[in-house]
Amino acid sequence: MGQTLALHPDRLFASCPEQRAIARELYQSVASLPIISPHGHTDPNWFAYNRPFANATELLIQPDHYLLRMLYSQGIALEALGLSPADGADMETDPAQVWQLFGENYHLFRGTPTRLWMDHVLAEVFFIEQRLDGDSAQDIYTEINKLLATPEYLPRTLFERFNIEVIATTESPLDPLEAHRKLRDDPWQGRVITAFRPDPVLDPEYDNFAANIAELARLSGESCSDYASYLNALRERRAFFKTMGATSTDHGHPSARTADLDAVECERLYQGALQGSLTPGQAELFRGQMLLEMALMSLEDGLVMQIHPGVYRNHNPRLFQRFGRDKGADIPLPGEFVRNLKPLLDRFGNDPRLSLILFTLDETTYARELAPLAGHYPALKLGPPWWFHDSPEGMLRYRQQVTETAGFYNTAGFNDDTRAFLSIPARHDVARRMDCRFLAQLVAEHRIDRDEAQQLAVDLSYTLARQAYKL
Amino acid sequence: MGQTLALHPDRLFASCPEQRAIARELYQSVASLPIISPHGHTDPNWFAYNRPFANATELLIQPDHYLLRMLYSQGIALEALGLSPADGADMETDPAQVWQLFGENYHLFRGTPTRLWMDHVLAEVFFIEQRLDGDSAQDIYTEINKLLATPEYLPRTLFERFNIEVIATTESPLDPLEAHRKLRDDPWQGRVITAFRPDPVLDPEYDNFAANIAELARLSGESCSDYASYLNALRERRAFFKTMGATSTDHGHPSARTADLDAVECERLYQGALQGSLTPGQAELFRGQMLLEMALMSLEDGLVMQIHPGVYRNHNPRLFQRFGRDKGADIPLPGEFVRNLKPLLDRFGNDPRLSLILFTLDETTYARELAPLAGHYPALKLGPPWWFHDSPEGMLRYRQQVTETAGFYNTAGFNDDTRAFLSIPARHDVARRMDCRFLAQLVAEHRIDRDEAQQLAVDLSYTLARQAYKL
Amino acid sequence: MGQTLALHPDRLFASCPEQRAIARELYQSVASLPIISPHGHTDPNWFAYNRPFANATELLIQPDHYLLRMLYSQGIALEALGLSPADGADMETDPAQVWQLFGENYHLFRGTPTRLWMDHVLAEVFFIEQRLDGDSAQDIYTEINKLLATPEYLPRTLFERFNIEVIATTESPLDPLEAHRKLRDDPWQGRVITAFRPDPVLDPEYDNFAANIAELARLSGESCSDYASYLNALRERRAFFKTMGATSTDHGHPSARTADLDAVECERLYQGALQGSLTPGQAELFRGQMLLEMALMSLEDGLVMQIHPGVYRNHNPRLFQRFGRDKGADIPLPGEFVRNLKPLLDRFGNDPRLSLILFTLDETTYARELAPLAGHYPALKLGPPWWFHDSPEGMLRYRQQVTETAGFYNTAGFNDDTRAFLSIPARHDVARRMDCRFLAQLVAEHRIDRDEAQQLAVDLSYTLARQAYKL
Repeated sequence: MGQTLALHPDRLFASCPEQRAIARELYQSVASLPIISPHGHTDPNWFAYNRPFANATELLIQPDHYLLRMLYSQGIALEALGLSPADGADMETDPAQVWQLFGENYHLFRGTPTRLWMDHVLAEVFFIEQRLDGDSAQDIYTEINKLLATPEYLPRTLFERFNIEVIATTESPLDPLEAHRKLRDDPWQGRVITAFRPDPVLDPEYDNFAANIAELARLSGESCSDYASYLNALRERRAFFKTMGATSTDHGHPSARTADLDAVECERLYQGALQGSLTPGQAELFRGQMLLEMALMSLEDGLVMQIHPGVYRNHNPRLFQRFGRDKGADIPLPGEFVRNLKPLLDRFGNDPRLSLILFTLDETTYARELAPLAGHYPALKLGPPWWFHDSPEGMLRYRQQVTETAGFYNTAGFNDDTRAFLSIPARHDVARRMDCRFLAQLVAEHRIDRDEAQQLAVDLSYTLARQAYKL
Repeated sequence: MGQTLALHPDRLFASCPEQRAIARELYQSVASLPIISPHGHTDPNWFAYNRPFANATELLIQPDHYLLRMLYSQGIALEALGLSPADGADMETDPAQVWQLFGENYHLFRGTPTRLWMDHVLAEVFFIEQRLDGDSAQDIYTEINKLLATPEYLPRTLFERFNIEVIATTESPLDPLEAHRKLRDDPWQGRVITAFRPDPVLDPEYDNFAANIAELARLSGESCSDYASYLNALRERRAFFKTMGATSTDHGHPSARTADLDAVECERLYQGALQGSLTPGQAELFRGQMLLEMALMSLEDGLVMQIHPGVYRNHNPRLFQRFGRDKGADIPLPGEFVRNLKPLLDRFGNDPRLSLILFTLDETTYARELAPLAGHYPALKLGPPWWFHDSPEGMLRYRQQVTETAGFYNTAGFNDDTRAFLSIPARHDVARRMDCRFLAQLVAEHRIDRDEAQQLAVDLSYTLARQAYKL
Repeated sequence: MGQTLALHPDRLFASCPEQRAIARELYQSVASLPIISPHGHTDPNWFAYNRPFANATELLIQPDHYLLRMLYSQGIALEALGLSPADGADMETDPAQVWQLFGENYHLFRGTPTRLWMDHVLAEVFFIEQRLDGDSAQDIYTEINKLLATPEYLPRTLFERFNIEVIATTESPLDPLEAHRKLRDDPWQGRVITAFRPDPVLDPEYDNFAANIAELARLSGESCSDYASYLNALRERRAFFKTMGATSTDHGHPSARTADLDAVECERLYQGALQGSLTPGQAELFRGQMLLEMALMSLEDGLVMQIHPGVYRNHNPRLFQRFGRDKGADIPLPGEFVRNLKPLLDRFGNDPRLSLILFTLDETTYARELAPLAGHYPALKLGPPWWFHDSPEGMLRYRQQVTETAGFYNTAGFNDDTRAFLSIPARHDVARRMDCRFLAQLVAEHRIDRDEAQQLAVDLSYTLARQAYKL
């Protein structure tokens, strides 16, 4: 017979008794604070239309690139996980079989955050009491699906049960934001807002850039035939996003490169971008200029700016051709911020009205570049550990490497950055536990006082994110 | 009077009582598992001819570049350690004096793995009960030499006493493998196999490359006058190595650069390599192409492929001129895998039949590049912490930085990578203790369950290496 | 009412009882050892003229770029901190108000070393018993100023109370060293020595390089019209600095680049430097050549050589224009030592008479480059964690990443590198505590013996710095 599943109340705290006792107390005081989720990728249609989720496999496995990546790395084909290849090859069509395969390979996730999040979802959201494995998989699958069919598991009900104060989704400027419009006009009180992610119209190397600009022109009523008109179109979309609650923009560029070019150069690059004639270096320069323009617009309209740089997207071309984006083949690249951000910082770095939140996948930049920059420039804040580093050890390294130079108050609290809606409480719980653990260590080692740790626990769990994103 | 030497049963475990108790239990269950040593540099002649080792100095000091490096860094000339300089300068010829000098400077190794390994060798292999220092050195030297002269200290007896299930040595394709042939035809049951290390015939910048190719032609019966014949010669040698037990190849290139060139370009580079006319960039490109060819051959013949990149060899030219290779003047370089491996991964990365094991000396690549790559591509696995990082802190950092993204099952278990035969049990013991320590922490912090840690302890100590190297 | 301020006797030790008990014992044995301060930036006039310090704000806030950086990053203008902008804008002129603002924002420093140092200064130097905040600020300010007016708080009295055995200041070759001359001829026994920091006359990109060379010529009596005369001038200044106690030189170059050029090239670069016609690449090459010349002179005159590379100085041009250097806008850059140091090491790396102490702000170089280099070359030693890393976590990472390859005896002890005189005991106390903590862990995990840790604690706190700097 199988193993039980039970989340230990002291999980993730250091096992040293002094530290554990302090961590436990700190955590108690923040465990039930509302969730601020200022950056993520949930689907606003869930909340707008409040339809039931289909089944455990569609909800919990197939959209989660963390799961797909690990299973694939061990030789499990994506077809066997029910993903549909572009070449029409056979695939598993029975979601119960996909769940079974997941259960049989659940041991692969030992020591990973996926395991922590999934156990939390199973235990806390679905009240499962058996550990997932090949034997328990079908019982668990049946139980989850049974619950998903009940009103208690509708998206809005879960939203409220999760105690989410506000959640931001992420949309392209080309998105008409119909779901958000419906939410805005709906009597439901849940606060679901959008965020402005303009990569498709800022990055000349993005798929169908020229067509995207044509659509931007259509939506904005600007011709977009020259750089000034293009900027006006972007301004128009930002204003529209603000009417749908947006408080932030987000930029997923290959690097943090910024630029401050003259008008002639901007126009020349923009025309080249429209014609698809830019070299890679020119495209990079154009993206850099656009980050500067975004900062300038943020000073005008107050939107908080986020930069998530440094990923080699779709590193695996065969997989990309057969299954498309976001299947786990994105790989981090070395980061550089000191020279890349300088043009932007030279213009706006001293202005405390700008709030620019930086993320990295290259942990070597925490202590060397990001903490010194954020510990100096009024306009800069550090976002939480991101993606591959959104994990217990990743969070510890972040605090250990950032705090001594940037302090706590130049960081922007936690965000979950996820499309896995059901894991949001799990992710915030991991972050709160790890922050309380870190604070408990500082207290136990007499590096800060107990009352200060108490205040910091609340700030890191709730206040800083709310302030940094102007929520 | 001197200090005693006694290995503490809890050494290397975290001192927090909860974690220590769990680590102790986990370790008990793996301490006596057989040793799998799939990658190393012991001399096969030891096992083929089973002659007694000469003395403590020749066996334990003079071949160990970890020892030489540290003593040299503190101003001790290699001549004083009995190494013979090419210029015929005076050197110490009395091995007892060399041992004495080592004993007097043993404090330099405090906090290093050398200290742990040497204490283990002294206490466990030679039953020494005094800590090594200037006072105890001669007694210890005498005792070791006395034991080395007994049948209990012959190589094969030690091999059996060490409970080695299989050990791989490393040879050039130009090696006739006489020792391995003798071992194969010998009634002794110890499993000593070779591994295929073709750097001397793959790297155009290797000493005497053209002469090496001529020898390759002679041994293989292929002309090696063109690229196709050269590849056939390599295939022939791989097949020959397989008859001597090889299950793997190993590649010590300056970088992980791979390439996928057309036939004309391959031929042109090969002819340039033969003529010694390649630029450094072309030589690098040729090496990159050869990694791709090796991967292709591995798909044909099933040999596991290892890449150990990123070392500046013989950084100290004066020392190199006077004493030759492997004297401790090799220095790590920054690593890069995301772009360098792409040509190879584009071709073979999705094929689970390929087993490509990656090593690094640049720990910044663990979390940023290697874990994301190995956590996605079916063909990739991560080798254990290597060389400068084959140490308690190095092992901890490896698990802390790799596990959350790649899990445990995309890693390849431990290998000792050593020519210091007597330290092999010590090295595996350190690895098993550190893995049990890491697992104990996960259990004590309720991040995995106790039964899972138990299974992982066995997997990390034994099963994963056996599987990854197809042993 | 406010919180009390009390330094806990176990602060900074691991909270695990086994380790804490050992750390406490080790620390007891080194807590009162004299302070060796071989590298720092205190003002020799303090000790030469022994005048009272003005007030808490001028002494503790305004010269401290760690404080300014953090407050500025949170939107507090430097004018509000009483710094005078070049454009004559309004500024706060009441030091009590500046102190008040600092007190109100003291929470920003939670988790930073500034907090540890400042609390130590308040509690140990000024016997303050209230935690600094907005409420307590004025009482504390008044109390400090009252004490500063007493003879017990004159610089020489504090020097003696701090138990400083020797302190080195840092001066340019253009400095006439009047304060040091006065100190040399003064009956006061405190040992205050200079160190030779020739960046202004070695770096062609330094402000007013040509004028600096003209002044160098004047001071040295050499024409400096050609390279040979320039080198002679430098030799003369080094000799003069030695008469003022100097035992070391220090070099703050943008990188660790060294070069070994022929005489014609040296002359050509030098003439270009005088004319201000060097390209950035040539300027870098010239600096590299000068490091080699400095090493050569060190072999002649015995001065220990320090290299502090890898900082982007004055990253914030607006701040620099308004407030000048050293206001917290220096940002670390990636480091590289393996190729950069090779020309110098090829010449002098094997010579144990040279003592070259390396520092880095890029922690990725600890395990990858610096420990392997220092663990091999007799001429190299590693300086302690520097600047942004001179902190509890920074010190832990340093020992964890350096020790296993370089051991303890290739490191150079601690130095405080500070102009904040009153924080010197605090900084050495943090270093001693963290080293004892690290050693206690090694003992508790049975990686070294208790008696060895005892000796190491003394070596790391006192002996190694004294030896490395020939004090």
